[in-house]
Amino acid sequence: MNLLIDGVPTDRVAVTDRGLHYGDGLFETIAVIEGVPELWERHLHRLCLGCERLAIPMPDADLLRAEAERVCAGTRRAVLKLILTRGHGGRGYRPPQEARPTRILARYPWPDYPAAWWQEGVEVRVCRYRLSLNPILAGIKHLNRLDQVLARGEWSDPEISEGLLLDPLGHVIEGTMSNLFLVRTGRLITPDLTQAGITGVIRGLIMDTAATLGISCHSAPLTLTDLMDADELFLCNSIIGIWPVRLLESRVYKPVPGAITARLSEAIAAIRQS
Amino acid sequence: MNLLIDGVPTDRVAVTDRGLHYGDGLFETIAVIEGVPELWERHLHRLCLGCERLAIPMPDADLLRAEAERVCAGTRRAVLKLILTRGHGGRGYRPPQEARPTRILARYPWPDYPAAWWQEGVEVRVCRYRLSLNPILAGIKHLNRLDQVLARGEWSDPEISEGLLLDPLGHVIEGTMSNLFLVRTGRLITPDLTQAGITGVIRGLIMDTAATLGISCHSAPLTLTDLMDADELFLCNSIIGIWPVRLLESRVYKPVPGAITARLSEAIAAIRQS
Repeated sequence: MNLLIDGVPTDRVAVTDRGLHYGDGLFETIAVIEGVPELWERHLHRLCLGCERLAIPMPDADLLRAEAERVCAGTRRAVLKLILTRGHGGRGYRPPQEARPTRILARYPWPDYPAAWWQEGVEVRVCRYRLSLNPILAGIKHLNRLDQVLARGEWSDPEISEGLLLDPLGHVIEGTMSNLFLVRTGRLITPDLTQAGITGVIRGLIMDTAATLGISCHSAPLTLTDLMDADELFLCNSIIGIWPVRLLESRVYKPVPGAITARLSEAIAAIRQS
Repeated sequence: MNLLIDGVPTDRVAVTDRGLHYGDGLFETIAVIEGVPELWERHLHRLCLGCERLAIPMPDADLLRAEAERVCAGTRRAVLKLILTRGHGGRGYRPPQEARPTRILARYPWPDYPAAWWQEGVEVRVCRYRLSLNPILAGIKHLNRLDQVLARGEWSDPEISEGLLLDPLGHVIEGTMSNLFLVRTGRLITPDLTQAGITGVIRGLIMDTAATLGISCHSAPLTLTDLMDADELFLCNSIIGIWPVRLLESRVYKPVPGAITARLSEAIAAIRQS
């Protein structure tokens, strides 16, 4: 069984669900190792922030955990997608006063990325599509994802692992499915996400890990020029961990991985395996 | 039968649908009078524009029409919601190369608004929530509707019929579920929707009807001050037709309906009944 909707094994959802009608909900994409959802507390924390922002009642954490373990039981490596919508609704945008959120837990196969993407780095492009600025929706992992769909539709070259998204002011925000860090003179900087973007769970882990390793790390508005001028560049998300970037458009980063990227990759891998 | 999904009577949709995962799709809300979907060609035209913008294959128009009639058969007055998603997908934002869109047709009861809202006008507020600017998504009726959900969640007073949404620059764009026109010295102006908002079917009909009635009408960036300084103000959508505004925050519009609003309401009602 790889699907549970409100605790019931089924692959169908009510057509009245507000997740379908409005994208009125949230999700988490979680790595599963030996049947255990990784960094569960961090994922739940972000889900909780999203629920507060959208005024969706947060389900019982123990129930979610039990359902996640049920869906993931017996798998060695998998991806768990947890979707939480505001639940059923009639016609009309107005949120029901007493929402009964829908819990969807779906297990997917572990993606089959080439090992070279970790070892030798990835090739990255810049998307034409621009992210909108919206401080209310920024940070949370909500279900309104046409931005990412349209940006990801811009290329089909399998050699290009990721596309970077800028905001209308020319600030680099993130990749279509990843966050971004640069290293300059030994310091780590990641884009400010108060106006756009998703605050990734691994992004948070990297910021905390950098602190414990004594590596200076902060978030700030970054431009493409900042990326081009960086010594190292890497992408991260909950599934891939860290991918060093070897090529951004015509800019080559050498060596790959750079020293700081390598230290962080090692530290993050150790935390994930612990 | 009030529901058809891909031609099959059912109230469940596949949990893998990209409409649920990403809001990757479009919709139309259509008035049904004596079993017939009203202004069908205009709705289909906007759906088609949305399909082009999102690169979703447009289904056969005759098939959609036949399904709409099947769902609406025998009803005197109803609301037809037509949802078109990019269809099933695996995990990941990338649109499938050969998408097989999902067609959802759902019939809802006609809403029960007070008759006074047409005769004596409605009370309208200004939402705190701001719409983002996004020229790619502006105009089309896509499924990423958290903006409207969050804005509509701002008030519960049943005396307030609608809330107006501004963009970050202070331009008035639309209501949460309606478009907006003002009348000043006999001329009709509606907000420019090239950066945000939905180009409503009735909005289009009103612009065309104004032209045939010899009423000057154009779209332009409008501020709240423009609305406050207007002689008349009205809201419109496919279900309500035209609602005159009698109160916007503390600004009272008199008489209600104003002369131009009354002429247009009559003309639009005549077209809808023909």
